[in-house]
Amino acid sequence: MAAALKPVDVVRVRDGARIAVVDCAATEEPLEVRLHGRPFAVIMRTPGADRELAAGFLLAERVIRSADDLGTIAYCTEQVRLKDDEVRLTADTTYAGVTGPDVEPTYAENVVNVTLTGERQAHVERALAERRQVTTSSSCGLCGRLTIESLKVDVGALPVRERLPAQLVTTLPDRLRAAQTVFDDTGGIHAAGLFTGSGELATSAEDVGRHNAVDKVVGRMLMADALPLTDRILVVSGRTSYEIVQKALIAGIPLVASVSAPSTLAIELAHATGVTLLGFVRGGTFNIYTHAERILL
Amino acid sequence: MAAALKPVDVVRVRDGARIAVVDCAATEEPLEVRLHGRPFAVIMRTPGADRELAAGFLLAERVIRSADDLGTIAYCTEQVRLKDDEVRLTADTTYAGVTGPDVEPTYAENVVNVTLTGERQAHVERALAERRQVTTSSSCGLCGRLTIESLKVDVGALPVRERLPAQLVTTLPDRLRAAQTVFDDTGGIHAAGLFTGSGELATSAEDVGRHNAVDKVVGRMLMADALPLTDRILVVSGRTSYEIVQKALIAGIPLVASVSAPSTLAIELAHATGVTLLGFVRGGTFNIYTHAERILL
Repeated sequence: MAAALKPVDVVRVRDGARIAVVDCAATEEPLEVRLHGRPFAVIMRTPGADRELAAGFLLAERVIRSADDLGTIAYCTEQVRLKDDEVRLTADTTYAGVTGPDVEPTYAENVVNVTLTGERQAHVERALAERRQVTTSSSCGLCGRLTIESLKVDVGALPVRERLPAQLVTTLPDRLRAAQTVFDDTGGIHAAGLFTGSGELATSAEDVGRHNAVDKVVGRMLMADALPLTDRILVVSGRTSYEIVQKALIAGIPLVASVSAPSTLAIELAHATGVTLLGFVRGGTFNIYTHAERILL
Repeated sequence: MAAALKPVDVVRVRDGARIAVVDCAATEEPLEVRLHGRPFAVIMRTPGADRELAAGFLLAERVIRSADDLGTIAYCTEQVRLKDDEVRLTADTTYAGVTGPDVEPTYAENVVNVTLTGERQAHVERALAERRQVTTSSSCGLCGRLTIESLKVDVGALPVRERLPAQLVTTLPDRLRAAQTVFDDTGGIHAAGLFTGSGELATSAEDVGRHNAVDKVVGRMLMADALPLTDRILVVSGRTSYEIVQKALIAGIPLVASVSAPSTLAIELAHATGVTLLGFVRGGTFNIYTHAERILL
């Protein structure tokens, strides 16, 4: 496994003077996700929590719908031993290390193979075909349906179960920041954290990609069979795009908070599906873009 | 054409008090790029400079290699009139507005169709097939070769032609920031700018996606037949990922500067291909990660 950060030689320039120093940079490497041995996607990511990333990504892509659909997730260096199709994975599941026949050892740690369980196995062909279709056969209608409409059908609107004190909201980004280990050394990595209603950080992940960090925390919860996350708050370090809200929605997370700005489509999707969307959570203030009924003032 | 920013209703919370205000958010909408009428890719982007985005994206994807390969770029609402295959597009090329038969008017402004010229037309089938292949048939070897190795073959290393004063480098982010129109109103949009060796901003673009902003400025230069951009500096507002350096390299840009951090793969690619990579350009200082010989101290 490559490290999440690597030392790099840097020339630091200040007032026209240069100093040679050794700094750290966030690692970025491609991860290939295979479905039953067949290539499904390549994700540029920071190594670490690769199985969780694959699980969260496949959930967001609707290839799996719950932990029940997941058989195994293993690096190509690993020999998967299955007693039956119903093996439940956890984040620390390990396998005997055996290099697969078609994978060069150098890149083997950048490939994970995912198998689906019993009934869901029948979906493998469809998932591979659909992904082809999204890339090569999308229509204009898709552009619109891809967004708000299709999701409204696919996932039900989220009910309001509890209300979060405004005071607590303002503390969340600092709590997430305190849990970031790679950021301190690199200054260039995104984070996503899942918080409880009382403001405790349940789990977090870092990645050069904002979407990957969210897939990692959601995937970890999926693998622990903890979905839907109806009593969790998702906090992200960057902007909130459409995809971030989509991933939260699919995981059942009713509240998304960010230190930065949301896009129009993120706001529209959150509005239509019952997600509370908060932005610019910094310096003791924040903006509520949708469903203010979850915030207690 | 949808606006690059839209008004949104916001509840602003400060010290437990709430104020209802109208704010602005950066628009995010899908753009479908077609090749000779056939779907090639869907890009989530901020509307504006869509033709430039499509041109820059197709250059980065190696579907086109120069302005000579570009026939037409038109919205699906537009009737393309070609006198011959050699029509050269410029950013302000206009067409008579006629809705295509297969495009719903609502989404038509989110679809552009690109045609290639003469010889390059033969590449359309291959481009569509290759894109399928990248998604569904990538191998472990690809994971490695996709990155440093393949590019070293595809694009030659960039020579050092001129040296940039360190003092000038520190002024670039503020100059780019001054040209951003959407950011001031939304606080949530990325920018990319091309600067001359004397620090003048040649062109810039804004987008919710960092990569899109780069594709827009490069695409604009491509459409003006100004590539390779060997005497330009690319300044980006966010982190520098592998893809940002790749796009600069393909456009022939020898110097990339960012206000934030680069990833390891961005540094490796820049090092291997002769690109000068600067990061954390802020507060009068900056870091040189690769090829310091272009910076004059």
